[in-house]
Amino acid sequence: MMALRCPIHKASALFSPQTMKAVSSPPCASTPRKWLHTCKTFFLQHHRQPYTANIAFSASASASPSISVVDDDAMGYIFGHNKATQVAHLVWKYVVRSGDTVIDATCGNGNDTLAMLRMVADDSASGCVYGFDIQQQALRNTSLLLDDSVTPEEKQMVKLYAICHSRMEDVVPVDKLARLVAFNLGYLPGGEKSIITRPETTILALKAAQRKLAIGGLISAIVYVGHPGGREEYAAIEDFASQLHADEWKCCKFQTLNRPAAPIVIFIFRK
Amino acid sequence: MMALRCPIHKASALFSPQTMKAVSSPPCASTPRKWLHTCKTFFLQHHRQPYTANIAFSASASASPSISVVDDDAMGYIFGHNKATQVAHLVWKYVVRSGDTVIDATCGNGNDTLAMLRMVADDSASGCVYGFDIQQQALRNTSLLLDDSVTPEEKQMVKLYAICHSRMEDVVPVDKLARLVAFNLGYLPGGEKSIITRPETTILALKAAQRKLAIGGLISAIVYVGHPGGREEYAAIEDFASQLHADEWKCCKFQTLNRPAAPIVIFIFRK
Repeated sequence: MMALRCPIHKASALFSPQTMKAVSSPPCASTPRKWLHTCKTFFLQHHRQPYTANIAFSASASASPSISVVDDDAMGYIFGHNKATQVAHLVWKYVVRSGDTVIDATCGNGNDTLAMLRMVADDSASGCVYGFDIQQQALRNTSLLLDDSVTPEEKQMVKLYAICHSRMEDVVPVDKLARLVAFNLGYLPGGEKSIITRPETTILALKAAQRKLAIGGLISAIVYVGHPGGREEYAAIEDFASQLHADEWKCCKFQTLNRPAAPIVIFIFRK
Repeated sequence: MMALRCPIHKASALFSPQTMKAVSSPPCASTPRKWLHTCKTFFLQHHRQPYTANIAFSASASASPSISVVDDDAMGYIFGHNKATQVAHLVWKYVVRSGDTVIDATCGNGNDTLAMLRMVADDSASGCVYGFDIQQQALRNTSLLLDDSVTPEEKQMVKLYAICHSRMEDVVPVDKLARLVAFNLGYLPGGEKSIITRPETTILALKAAQRKLAIGGLISAIVYVGHPGGREEYAAIEDFASQLHADEWKCCKFQTLNRPAAPIVIFIFRK
């Protein structure tokens, strides 16, 4: 048996390499056959060759059949299938370990908070997520998502604050350094679009994040430029990152060129 | 046993997770112990915690110990360890298959030509690399590198032309579509720095590459901005990529923000 991931829904089902039939429920189609059809169509479209047992499984017992290559998260971004947030989460996983302290500077609807909690949660409950949002609605949404997704013990590792992220140092203890500080800027999805993050406080928050960041830690920012004020905020962040000393920081960005309103991902890594 | 990759030389040796000793020859140090020391130093430097069996192998029988994460090529770029060319080669590998036709639009000293040949070479010799450079010295260097690195049969899959890459359609047969067209712009490393690629011909070559590209194929460009004329060339390419229709093309760039002269990597993927 081997696990195959659906290239669209990123969920796995068990497959028999001999019969090419699913042996567990497929996650995102009504029948195993339809699910396999989805994979085959996707593979053919992107590889211009049929998705057969020979091509997909060079060794029938391989744990990483070649179709999994197609839907790798980082490559998915380059080839246009994946969102910026998926790329950001992938990079976070390379930095964050269980037991770490991390900061979600913009809780929003809680998706990033939840992803971070899953990365730091450990049996000893030494991991910790500090979450910030100026909107009570955002913190309520985050809290509800956590209620639905994790145990009460795990939820206790998350501390939510309805204050501006530029004041993160007011609540995160002096002796706690963060492995990750993540920003997902703009407005609350589904909320009031006139309430947006603004360059002045975003830059103050980035400076606070710098001071709170452990060596080897990462500041991650997803910046939206499609709403009024977005481009100004992006310009301020790019200017901020460009001025950091290259001996201590590596700052890079991933940007889609032919979709002007696509979010831009900025990583600021403390060496 | 498990395979561990050296974070510097990208080669693997077999290791025993119980004893933390190498059981096959280490690829890039005189003794297994020295090789493990290299890995440990690297891990400590980048993760600020000792590289122990517990940390490196969360499950002792895991096929992907966490140290391999540290030296992943794409992540290495974000964290400042790897070069732009390494990221480009990694992305090429996701697109190119043995038997493909590919085009090296700027042979230079032949490193990219060689990397491409290794991706397309197959027993039936149906794979093909078309290489272009206006400098005879570059083609000589490329030919010598191939002589040193591959068999005569493999070398025959490479066709080198001392013409401008904007004329690639003059020599690549009409019925041959390329899976990859790669540009590594600027001047010949070690050569005459006044001979550089120029925006006018680079854009003509990119347009030719578009016409020669198979569906699902990739145009890859590493653009240097540290030499006179580099920024103008980069601006022209960015402008070109930005105007491609998002329904048919995904264009993105990876850029280091706090090293103004660092090369910029642009990928143009035909959907």
